[in-house]
Amino acid sequence: MDSINGSEAPQESDVKSFFDSAPPLRDGDLICRKLKEFMDGIARSSESGSPVRVVCVTSGGTTVPLEQRCVRYIDNFSSGYRGAASTEYFVKAGYAVIFVYRRGSCQPYCSYLPQDSFLEFFDLTEDSSIQVCQSHATVVKKAIRDYRKAVDEGLLLKLPFTTIFEYLQILKLVATSMSCTGTHGMFYLAAAVSDFYVPWESMAEHKIQSAVGPLDMRLTQVPKMLSVLRREWAPSAFCISFKLETDPDILLQKADAAMRKYGMHVVIANALATYKEEVIFVTKGGRTTVRRHNKDSDLEEQLTDLLVETHSEYIKQPGVEL
Amino acid sequence: MDSINGSEAPQESDVKSFFDSAPPLRDGDLICRKLKEFMDGIARSSESGSPVRVVCVTSGGTTVPLEQRCVRYIDNFSSGYRGAASTEYFVKAGYAVIFVYRRGSCQPYCSYLPQDSFLEFFDLTEDSSIQVCQSHATVVKKAIRDYRKAVDEGLLLKLPFTTIFEYLQILKLVATSMSCTGTHGMFYLAAAVSDFYVPWESMAEHKIQSAVGPLDMRLTQVPKMLSVLRREWAPSAFCISFKLETDPDILLQKADAAMRKYGMHVVIANALATYKEEVIFVTKGGRTTVRRHNKDSDLEEQLTDLLVETHSEYIKQPGVEL
Repeated sequence: MDSINGSEAPQESDVKSFFDSAPPLRDGDLICRKLKEFMDGIARSSESGSPVRVVCVTSGGTTVPLEQRCVRYIDNFSSGYRGAASTEYFVKAGYAVIFVYRRGSCQPYCSYLPQDSFLEFFDLTEDSSIQVCQSHATVVKKAIRDYRKAVDEGLLLKLPFTTIFEYLQILKLVATSMSCTGTHGMFYLAAAVSDFYVPWESMAEHKIQSAVGPLDMRLTQVPKMLSVLRREWAPSAFCISFKLETDPDILLQKADAAMRKYGMHVVIANALATYKEEVIFVTKGGRTTVRRHNKDSDLEEQLTDLLVETHSEYIKQPGVEL
Repeated sequence: MDSINGSEAPQESDVKSFFDSAPPLRDGDLICRKLKEFMDGIARSSESGSPVRVVCVTSGGTTVPLEQRCVRYIDNFSSGYRGAASTEYFVKAGYAVIFVYRRGSCQPYCSYLPQDSFLEFFDLTEDSSIQVCQSHATVVKKAIRDYRKAVDEGLLLKLPFTTIFEYLQILKLVATSMSCTGTHGMFYLAAAVSDFYVPWESMAEHKIQSAVGPLDMRLTQVPKMLSVLRREWAPSAFCISFKLETDPDILLQKADAAMRKYGMHVVIANALATYKEEVIFVTKGGRTTVRRHNKDSDLEEQLTDLLVETHSEYIKQPGVEL
């Protein structure tokens, strides 16, 4: 396993102060109970056969509230498509998926949905019965069937978040629940996480008033939790993070830095302008460009195939460079 | 009609500089064409009967991009429920509605939808045909029927926006298209509009890098377009704006100020903690508290009833205080 350069890791005091100052997690008990049930189910399946692999897929952007009673917030752009689509392919490959997603972002098995109004989707027949438009019937049926199967077989748990506080609190709970899976656990961290936040206690309680003149804001850096995840929360798990940049010139350099700093096993580098067409799969051993075969194929399918394979190598020899 | 206090109106140069510096409106020509067709249809209906009333309902929050190739933005909280539900009631009352909404926010005739996954909504029968769960069939049928009727009768036009730039550009187009409706036009401005923005030209082109240390941002005030709408874009229309505050103590004072400053005919004041239960209907003539009858009723129905009535009075005597 990779060592993490201590000098680049976040100060423990920053991490502690982030969690200490965060508002209490809504439904924290419920989330813990769901996680326990899900992991118990996986443990039972693993006992009766080969160990079940578990992946935590994070998806969508996090928000940073600017006021405690939140009217305004800073958001990170992310439709959540990559995480949702990858979840389907991981389930298909036999993984149990904990899907940690931004409320309102793309959902697995729902990518065929019309964006704004699903009323366009239905017909009303002459005898007033509802039917799904013929043009969509096949994909909808497949989706319903696959979704029910994933849930019924205990292979899909969905946990929603909105703010950066909820996201990191939930990630910590998931990671510590998954630590028992050892090298069979994977983190596929596709969520677009805010780099900056306003500490809860220094936040305005009420809506910031638009007085005369400009608004000055000072945002604090979010401690880089990736290294805490690797070092403390789930030290044996196989970890993949994503690097999105708008400027392709600095992308690979940032991806290399992320791998080194946070001890990731794989960093998926993508540029905003081309992220649907190609990504670069970066490991310590080298770089592989993954390009979408054609416009009807899914880049996420190729990406998950490659990850499943790399994860297998990792399980066999966790200490060897990939 | 109310006069607007010139000294409190925004500087013309601020308004000009906002529009001049905004990025060009995507699909601007298409929006103009749709608006023209819609207004032509209304003109034809009005010729063959009594004049059709037209309301522009704005809904959902606007975003403020922090980078030109947008990864991060500031968002205003708003589900868009109020605008979507009110649209249904305005159509029911015979209004033609131009629904200017934030992409991804609530849609008219869709409020019964499950929030995150509409897969929960369907059953697959034994012979593999799709059906909507029995429990939802009645509301879904009504929604499909009402939606089709509104669209087929030319009473609903939907125009989406995301950023503050798009929102104000579209509002200007709608308002100038509607000016021919005179006092029969209404603006129901329920969108949560950003108070601050980063002028496009002073915006970072690429993703802001999370270097060491905090991020300082300076945001400029958005010019208050409400008074421009009243004074220039649609001077005869009946105008309703909304005031949302988290602090109930300053709410009414802010609502009064908005009415005075921007020449609104009605300001709907609501506090974040209770906005689903009650609103205060503020006019120059006084204040009326509108409370939801019970948990099965819709505050929006009561609110639109009151507005339709007040609009009728305004059409009869536009110069008289309401």
